[in-house]
Amino acid sequence: MQKVSFIGSGKVAWHLAKALHQKGFQIGEIYSRSTQNAQLLAQEVAAKVNTNLDFTSQSPDLLLVAVSDNALAEVVGNLKIGKQTIVAHTSGSIGLEVFRKANYPYAVFYPLQTFSKNRNLDFSKIPICLEANNEEIYIFLEKIAHKLSANVSRISSAQRKVLHIAAVFACNFVNHLLAISKNILDKEQLSFDLLKPLIQETITKALEAKHPKEVQTGPAVRGDNLVLQKHIAYLAENLQMQKLYKLLSESIQHFDEEK
Amino acid sequence: MQKVSFIGSGKVAWHLAKALHQKGFQIGEIYSRSTQNAQLLAQEVAAKVNTNLDFTSQSPDLLLVAVSDNALAEVVGNLKIGKQTIVAHTSGSIGLEVFRKANYPYAVFYPLQTFSKNRNLDFSKIPICLEANNEEIYIFLEKIAHKLSANVSRISSAQRKVLHIAAVFACNFVNHLLAISKNILDKEQLSFDLLKPLIQETITKALEAKHPKEVQTGPAVRGDNLVLQKHIAYLAENLQMQKLYKLLSESIQHFDEEK
Repeated sequence: MQKVSFIGSGKVAWHLAKALHQKGFQIGEIYSRSTQNAQLLAQEVAAKVNTNLDFTSQSPDLLLVAVSDNALAEVVGNLKIGKQTIVAHTSGSIGLEVFRKANYPYAVFYPLQTFSKNRNLDFSKIPICLEANNEEIYIFLEKIAHKLSANVSRISSAQRKVLHIAAVFACNFVNHLLAISKNILDKEQLSFDLLKPLIQETITKALEAKHPKEVQTGPAVRGDNLVLQKHIAYLAENLQMQKLYKLLSESIQHFDEEK
Repeated sequence: MQKVSFIGSGKVAWHLAKALHQKGFQIGEIYSRSTQNAQLLAQEVAAKVNTNLDFTSQSPDLLLVAVSDNALAEVVGNLKIGKQTIVAHTSGSIGLEVFRKANYPYAVFYPLQTFSKNRNLDFSKIPICLEANNEEIYIFLEKIAHKLSANVSRISSAQRKVLHIAAVFACNFVNHLLAISKNILDKEQLSFDLLKPLIQETITKALEAKHPKEVQTGPAVRGDNLVLQKHIAYLAENLQMQKLYKLLSESIQHFDEEK
């Protein structure tokens, strides 16, 4: 039975450790700045708590470093581990080069999903993006990843950066537009619930289309200037929203001109 | 059995007529500029085809005018109908005042959803927004709407305009951000499929939250300027996307300052 240990006890560590435990991996030791959180997670997955960053005596097959981006370089710098353990971080925005001084095999094991402690997710559908510093390690990690998910891809650090930018548009910015939409409705005492079925159907159609641009609707793509002007006039009280409305409408109208 | 007739044979007419037919209403006559489309829909719902805009001899209880916004005023102007029929249009962006010269009872019967001919939708979850020129008509329409959906609301023309602006942000603009995201990935030969589970989970979390702003993530809300600068530099080849990236990030960072 392969042994996987963890540094970190946040949302990513929590979901990954539980999913690996369920698939029959031994979860060895867990280290966290918060010993209390480490203990909570250790209980869930029948693991032990490590009280420092020295994993030399435990020698897991794989050590997953699931800490915040800010903490990663420091953790990697202070880590003590034997040469037989593969160390992989789980960050979408940090490259393989954070390990450049390492004297152990290293990799990235990045589950592309947003995790919440209180929401269960079907791990089998979560894309896992892998990168390793040699092919043997890659194949080893790919076998582990395939136990968790049907959706495993080789993604380089450069590609992961682009993936992150695309995710900012498709997720962070999308969430913000939903927040703006709710504020617009709140101001007129209209319930956001009214829009939810439409939002859900819009997403379903966009994700099923060959390209979301094929299912673009609304006044901008129709060239309905009368409606555009009415909306822009209504938004005059909120210049930030008005600027966004104009720029997004322009962007829709010129979408096929730029690449 | 109440009789409902239709002007229009597009997506809204198609879904509404089928849903009403299934709930036991008699679909009377259907008029459409395209007689062929009117015939296709009439076959589906056991209705007859009307070849002109004169509905006086048929006297349905309700005539639903489900035509494009551009065509609505002209259709209403040329319509011939007895005083015993309620005429309602189904548009989200046109007010009750399109009927101001009418000598028959009138209303708005607006199902707030995006319809496609080849996708079946559960009508029971679609919000139906109603407005009528008197209370008796409102109550009559409310009974019909409740047969179709559990989600029926009284929405004035002014509120419907605001709902439309909110929907432009939450649906039209969201779709456009997904299109941008796909273009970013395409350029690096990365599959949009990689992001789909994350997009779906982002939407689910945003719609379950008390306010989407509470589940905002990403470099802008974290104040991670290093990542923001890297992303902006990467987007230098596409000024439209770069402008959007900057403005949306600013808007996230100043969201609570504006109302």
